[in-house]
Amino acid sequence: MFFHRQELQHSAKPDAPDAVYARKLQEVLGGQYGEITVAMQYQFQAWNMHLPGKYRDLVFGIGAEEMGHVEMLAVMIAQLLEKAPLGITGDAVQDDPTVAAVIGGTDVQQGIVAGAGARPVDSNGNPWQGSYITASGNLLADFTANANAEMQGRIQVARLYHMTDDHGIRDLLGFLLARDTMHQNQWLAAAAELREEGVEELPVPSNFPLSKENRDVAYQYLNFSDGAAAAEGGWASGPTPDGKGEFSYHDGPTTSAPMPPPTHPDARFYGTTDVPDTVEKVAGRIQDKLNKE
Amino acid sequence: MFFHRQELQHSAKPDAPDAVYARKLQEVLGGQYGEITVAMQYQFQAWNMHLPGKYRDLVFGIGAEEMGHVEMLAVMIAQLLEKAPLGITGDAVQDDPTVAAVIGGTDVQQGIVAGAGARPVDSNGNPWQGSYITASGNLLADFTANANAEMQGRIQVARLYHMTDDHGIRDLLGFLLARDTMHQNQWLAAAAELREEGVEELPVPSNFPLSKENRDVAYQYLNFSDGAAAAEGGWASGPTPDGKGEFSYHDGPTTSAPMPPPTHPDARFYGTTDVPDTVEKVAGRIQDKLNKE
Amino acid sequence: MFFHRQELQHSAKPDAPDAVYARKLQEVLGGQYGEITVAMQYQFQAWNMHLPGKYRDLVFGIGAEEMGHVEMLAVMIAQLLEKAPLGITGDAVQDDPTVAAVIGGTDVQQGIVAGAGARPVDSNGNPWQGSYITASGNLLADFTANANAEMQGRIQVARLYHMTDDHGIRDLLGFLLARDTMHQNQWLAAAAELREEGVEELPVPSNFPLSKENRDVAYQYLNFSDGAAAAEGGWASGPTPDGKGEFSYHDGPTTSAPMPPPTHPDARFYGTTDVPDTVEKVAGRIQDKLNKE
Amino acid sequence: MFFHRQELQHSAKPDAPDAVYARKLQEVLGGQYGEITVAMQYQFQAWNMHLPGKYRDLVFGIGAEEMGHVEMLAVMIAQLLEKAPLGITGDAVQDDPTVAAVIGGTDVQQGIVAGAGARPVDSNGNPWQGSYITASGNLLADFTANANAEMQGRIQVARLYHMTDDHGIRDLLGFLLARDTMHQNQWLAAAAELREEGVEELPVPSNFPLSKENRDVAYQYLNFSDGAAAAEGGWASGPTPDGKGEFSYHDGPTTSAPMPPPTHPDARFYGTTDVPDTVEKVAGRIQDKLNKE
Amino acid sequence: MFFHRQELQHSAKPDAPDAVYARKLQEVLGGQYGEITVAMQYQFQAWNMHLPGKYRDLVFGIGAEEMGHVEMLAVMIAQLLEKAPLGITGDAVQDDPTVAAVIGGTDVQQGIVAGAGARPVDSNGNPWQGSYITASGNLLADFTANANAEMQGRIQVARLYHMTDDHGIRDLLGFLLARDTMHQNQWLAAAAELREEGVEELPVPSNFPLSKENRDVAYQYLNFSDGAAAAEGGWASGPTPDGKGEFSYHDGPTTSAPMPPPTHPDARFYGTTDVPDTVEKVAGRIQDKLNKE
Amino acid sequence: MFFHRQELQHSAKPDAPDAVYARKLQEVLGGQYGEITVAMQYQFQAWNMHLPGKYRDLVFGIGAEEMGHVEMLAVMIAQLLEKAPLGITGDAVQDDPTVAAVIGGTDVQQGIVAGAGARPVDSNGNPWQGSYITASGNLLADFTANANAEMQGRIQVARLYHMTDDHGIRDLLGFLLARDTMHQNQWLAAAAELREEGVEELPVPSNFPLSKENRDVAYQYLNFSDGAAAAEGGWASGPTPDGKGEFSYHDGPTTSAPMPPPTHPDARFYGTTDVPDTVEKVAGRIQDKLNKE
Repeated sequence: MFFHRQELQHSAKPDAPDAVYARKLQEVLGGQYGEITVAMQYQFQAWNMHLPGKYRDLVFGIGAEEMGHVEMLAVMIAQLLEKAPLGITGDAVQDDPTVAAVIGGTDVQQGIVAGAGARPVDSNGNPWQGSYITASGNLLADFTANANAEMQGRIQVARLYHMTDDHGIRDLLGFLLARDTMHQNQWLAAAAELREEGVEELPVPSNFPLSKENRDVAYQYLNFSDGAAAAEGGWASGPTPDGKGEFSYHDGPTTSAPMPPPTHPDARFYGTTDVPDTVEKVAGRIQDKLNKE
Repeated sequence: MFFHRQELQHSAKPDAPDAVYARKLQEVLGGQYGEITVAMQYQFQAWNMHLPGKYRDLVFGIGAEEMGHVEMLAVMIAQLLEKAPLGITGDAVQDDPTVAAVIGGTDVQQGIVAGAGARPVDSNGNPWQGSYITASGNLLADFTANANAEMQGRIQVARLYHMTDDHGIRDLLGFLLARDTMHQNQWLAAAAELREEGVEELPVPSNFPLSKENRDVAYQYLNFSDGAAAAEGGWASGPTPDGKGEFSYHDGPTTSAPMPPPTHPDARFYGTTDVPDTVEKVAGRIQDKLNKE
Repeated sequence: MFFHRQELQHSAKPDAPDAVYARKLQEVLGGQYGEITVAMQYQFQAWNMHLPGKYRDLVFGIGAEEMGHVEMLAVMIAQLLEKAPLGITGDAVQDDPTVAAVIGGTDVQQGIVAGAGARPVDSNGNPWQGSYITASGNLLADFTANANAEMQGRIQVARLYHMTDDHGIRDLLGFLLARDTMHQNQWLAAAAELREEGVEELPVPSNFPLSKENRDVAYQYLNFSDGAAAAEGGWASGPTPDGKGEFSYHDGPTTSAPMPPPTHPDARFYGTTDVPDTVEKVAGRIQDKLNKE
Repeated sequence: MFFHRQELQHSAKPDAPDAVYARKLQEVLGGQYGEITVAMQYQFQAWNMHLPGKYRDLVFGIGAEEMGHVEMLAVMIAQLLEKAPLGITGDAVQDDPTVAAVIGGTDVQQGIVAGAGARPVDSNGNPWQGSYITASGNLLADFTANANAEMQGRIQVARLYHMTDDHGIRDLLGFLLARDTMHQNQWLAAAAELREEGVEELPVPSNFPLSKENRDVAYQYLNFSDGAAAAEGGWASGPTPDGKGEFSYHDGPTTSAPMPPPTHPDARFYGTTDVPDTVEKVAGRIQDKLNKE
Repeated sequence: MFFHRQELQHSAKPDAPDAVYARKLQEVLGGQYGEITVAMQYQFQAWNMHLPGKYRDLVFGIGAEEMGHVEMLAVMIAQLLEKAPLGITGDAVQDDPTVAAVIGGTDVQQGIVAGAGARPVDSNGNPWQGSYITASGNLLADFTANANAEMQGRIQVARLYHMTDDHGIRDLLGFLLARDTMHQNQWLAAAAELREEGVEELPVPSNFPLSKENRDVAYQYLNFSDGAAAAEGGWASGPTPDGKGEFSYHDGPTTSAPMPPPTHPDARFYGTTDVPDTVEKVAGRIQDKLNKE
Repeated sequence: MFFHRQELQHSAKPDAPDAVYARKLQEVLGGQYGEITVAMQYQFQAWNMHLPGKYRDLVFGIGAEEMGHVEMLAVMIAQLLEKAPLGITGDAVQDDPTVAAVIGGTDVQQGIVAGAGARPVDSNGNPWQGSYITASGNLLADFTANANAEMQGRIQVARLYHMTDDHGIRDLLGFLLARDTMHQNQWLAAAAELREEGVEELPVPSNFPLSKENRDVAYQYLNFSDGAAAAEGGWASGPTPDGKGEFSYHDGPTTSAPMPPPTHPDARFYGTTDVPDTVEKVAGRIQDKLNKE
């Protein structure tokens, strides 16, 4: 169960309205790596988790915080839109070309659809969607996904920080950046703890019998482009992070197989096929002719 | 530039057709973490990269290999569909209830739309989409995204491995599992190398001035659920992975701010507002009445 | 801010696993009118609301409850999938055709992607999306949207009730049906209260000056099909619900205007146009010829 | 069957081209509550209806009118784009910064894709989609959905009215506003008639046996937020609109159930689980080691 | 304007209900090449057309017919679902495994969402979307798109024909196949007429000055794969269909250019860059340290 | 298998950065008819093809070239964004209104999400999706689809050509225009060759027995609009392109059938139905009452 308190985790109050910035801020509210994504991702991981205890409590504990981050951003966007002009009529442009200059940068649906409000979309107006989240049931994979989500999110907030001079917005972003710092650290710590405790190891999933994979190519770097520098990296020689092999470097594939012959599905799929079917086709046409007569 | 060779990296030949499995295999071809995703993700990372040398060569080198993995799966799916029945007419069900039993599990668009062919969709028929990929320009974040993608992909292939007895399919999956093992190791090695060389550090992005974020909350675990076990994890105390702080544990938020008052946008957005606007509304209605008379 | 408690509002425990039903239940979790939709819809309405007091408290009060409904369904689905078979290999079908019979009805991504877990998608696997929600800022319109959402939701749960014999599932559905009963009643009561208090009236938005709309056609039923019975309804004669007019019935349109002539955009859009442009085209081709020589 | 007449229901002729406004108008053509939505929604309701007579004739009668509204908007948009500049090259900006000022506000696909034409998308360029419509087969629910659609549509047209000074556009919008007034009234009248005739009642669906729902919580207002004012509304006490109960007010949930224990799906889903599986994992790793040797 | 008549163009009555087939038929109703697509495509082409007369009348004339085809399919689907079971409960499967066998093949949303009705989706439940249509304003291109749409549509109907034995369904499909035959012929005839009249030519758009394209590579077949047989086709030598050149065959590219150096955007985008930025990063870290002290 | 070479097929270097143009160019990279579409379309056609030899080699040969076109556009876009401003803060607008003027025209996600990089989206930010491609297995249909794709693509590039003065961009577009000229010609030549060789004919699919379609209406032009000029076209009289009939012209439909009666699905779908069900409903309500007492 979830309980709501009509308070924010941090102040979300701009110094002044800014309809153009209100659009940009949608990215970290409703974008691929926005707050709705992490809120939903952590909660679905919690609901599907097969393990009681600290890992599940962790995911539950953070999921609800992220819902509160969605709220801070939505409330901030609504205020940024408070004095949003309805649009630019001819006269308005004449009066103030500077205001007109930035009008192209607004999200017109924030006005037409939401009446100067926040929306569950990204900064280009694409609706948030369930396929943004990751919850596989495998914790080492999912915590890596979480670490990535917090990194991408912090990068986006950092970029947004420089796109405004408003102290109120920067104050909120400074808070979100710090929480992203925490969450990056936390997921990396949790991923490390999974490995230390032997709950999960590399390669993920670690309990799939390695004997069933083709071990010959399991540590080969195969270079399918012509850049020679890839041979200099730590992925081209030396021990592998999973501790189970040695990297080796190869220019191009080390294996190959002939392309199988084209398939011949049932003729009634009407795909284009070669001779045998053509005969059949001719027969079909003859039948047509006979039927016509 | 890309060049194609009419050979496969590994044999992709099922022992027997299996239309139900052909649908399931779509997940790792055109799903969120399918081969189209990684092929596109690595190539966009390469095209947008700001750094010449080994890291760019690495991303280019793998991107083209993944395109070849898309191809192996597409060719495999086409063969699995080779004897796919067009559908189940009344008589067919009578004749063979066992075949009928599994017909519900096929992707009907593989037949109706593609004529017994592979499609750029996932195992539920959702089209592949550009929003599956990640390419931020920040390599530590993106290599973490890549490691996650290879983990999720390997988990899905492992699950698919147990959903068939066909030796030909398992042979291909065993090859893909090994390449995912390599790629997991490789991205983790590359991420570590970025940190060792000081090219990028934690928290990502590491060159955003920490002084601008709210350091007070940068290492606090805030528990927004009521599971006490979260306090036992390595994310609740001790040094943080970025080496810049100490984790601390807190039950609930350590900060709060009042909810800002509701906004009052331009009345011509026709949102519902309180008294002052109601007066305006009454005036509007009087004007309407006058106009009517 | 949101706080989570590791308890459910009502028991969510099936008598037995049922992977086919787990797919169907996704509709009311992640479908157009599923619980994610109402949770998000009410919260966005709250964050964007321009009016403090009882209406905002109402929307906040319900929004968090609906998040808890999402949770009950997710937890139920995870349990329904607990013994889900990985898939149907040849042998399995031979052993038990009855189990095989229903395998087509499962959501394969619940297995391959989520490892036997719930997903933020509908019963056909379409991801939940932000465009399912409605939050215009106009409360009479939005409460009507909410009443509709609760009606559609209750219809879907009622249908799902008959698709299972499982007592545990039916117990949860009986609870959800009752809450939908409450919420239908509540939104209709709230919509009526808005009108009684004069906060908003019909037609919505009521403070748009009626003098600016074309009042001649504001109460005409125009029949664009050939079914005569439409004239018998209460919408064809008598006073209108907004109390501002009388319905009248008309067979077909009462107004018409000629189709404007085709447009002639800039020739460099390369649309196909008539004579004047053709001349231009000829000139272009002559120029090409001259350039060639 | 549908028949087209090359005439419009009302004049759709702007005084002057306006490419920025052409983008905004896309919202009510191809948006969530645009004319394509209502045209499709009413027709699908008609095709699926289980009841002959006045209700079906009503839905058929309006559906075809709405197709004509799509046409008026498309024709209007094409004219607004008639003198649309192809884009802004460097010189053009130098010559006229005012024109340049608004160029950001255009839908670039109207130019690049449609050659200065209307498109089946909303004002942010999101394609219209089938999931915008509602047609459940239950008329009281669907007519409530229709009333909402007409309300949302009229709000959006009212907002758009203030975003232009053009008399031709305002003339068309004044016509559409009036038709939305009619359609709001009509659907509310039809919904009331369904209830008066006893065809359908509250709660929807009214013929689901109430004895099967959990009547204890069917009229309880449960406050999951901390705003006290929700207790003052008509939904917190007094008789319910369905005439079958009395509202009561409760601070928080009146029921609760323990969270069920985590699930344990088949180990071959490779989700992370606790001790018993870890043993299995160790065994797997031993087997790997043995296989290697 | 559009007018509806409560009659169908052809009988749409199945001999017997068939819920599995009802799902398959959704493809040609709401799929990429279903009837909604062609109805919308032809109408948008008409509304955007820049040319009065026979071509515009043609597109208007067909668009309304296609709306009637949507209707026939929707009505057919509703009837196919008339006796659709609500679902498969345990007992039902025991009673009749054959019915159970096909239950996996139904579209569960036709039941849960539409109450045994047609939906604006394809056979995998993906909603119809505006991005399926093509209307560029260039008639030769668009009529080629139309010919393709009618070909793909006829192929899908032909495949569906073999998936049923029902005479009523086959009767309707036989009618649709014939109309697709007509429409294929018609669009090819219209495309030829455009070329004969000199309204548009190859290459499309024909009035773009050829002198501005790189004529050196305008007729070269460049083989980027290693299949030698491509040299045998009519596209590898001889005159070109546009009558303006001669095909030539080349193994691989005839031109090349070096990859430009990596870009260096503003450092505040926090992309990973090489040495100069690293210096900057170090400075940032020093500043952080100083701030901390 | 695919191999990458770190060279471009043609120079892709703008004279100067232009963030507004970088957004427009996304259309031909990631739009409906962008280079990702043709690259994927040709490759899926190849993988699914049922015919070895020149047609398959052709599709393979072009598919890899198109991947290289994706790369040239991505690299061009990254360079156009090289000096992209992060955004417009208050001061920046004051300093240079002309720069501000165009800021509305940028794709903000190219900055916030990709850090000044290309993305797999169109010019309105819609992600590329698998449903843009066509691969039916029928070569005459698919080559017609390919011809259309190259026509639409060339039109879009031609429009984009006029939207810039930059010599570097125009140089690349001139190259792409020429390749589109080649590919248009090539697909039309290949389609003609299929017909000449009798591999496939009109109407597509040509081996579906014509006797099974309703030949009476197979060549009738049926005018469902009121434009008389459609009778003047080559599609209204004379021989048909498939050589199997004669066109005829008809004003409106030549056939009709009564609308079937409304369906009566299982009452537990809770659709609204007429009298017989109402009785049932009354019974249900009585039962409710009895249960209550």
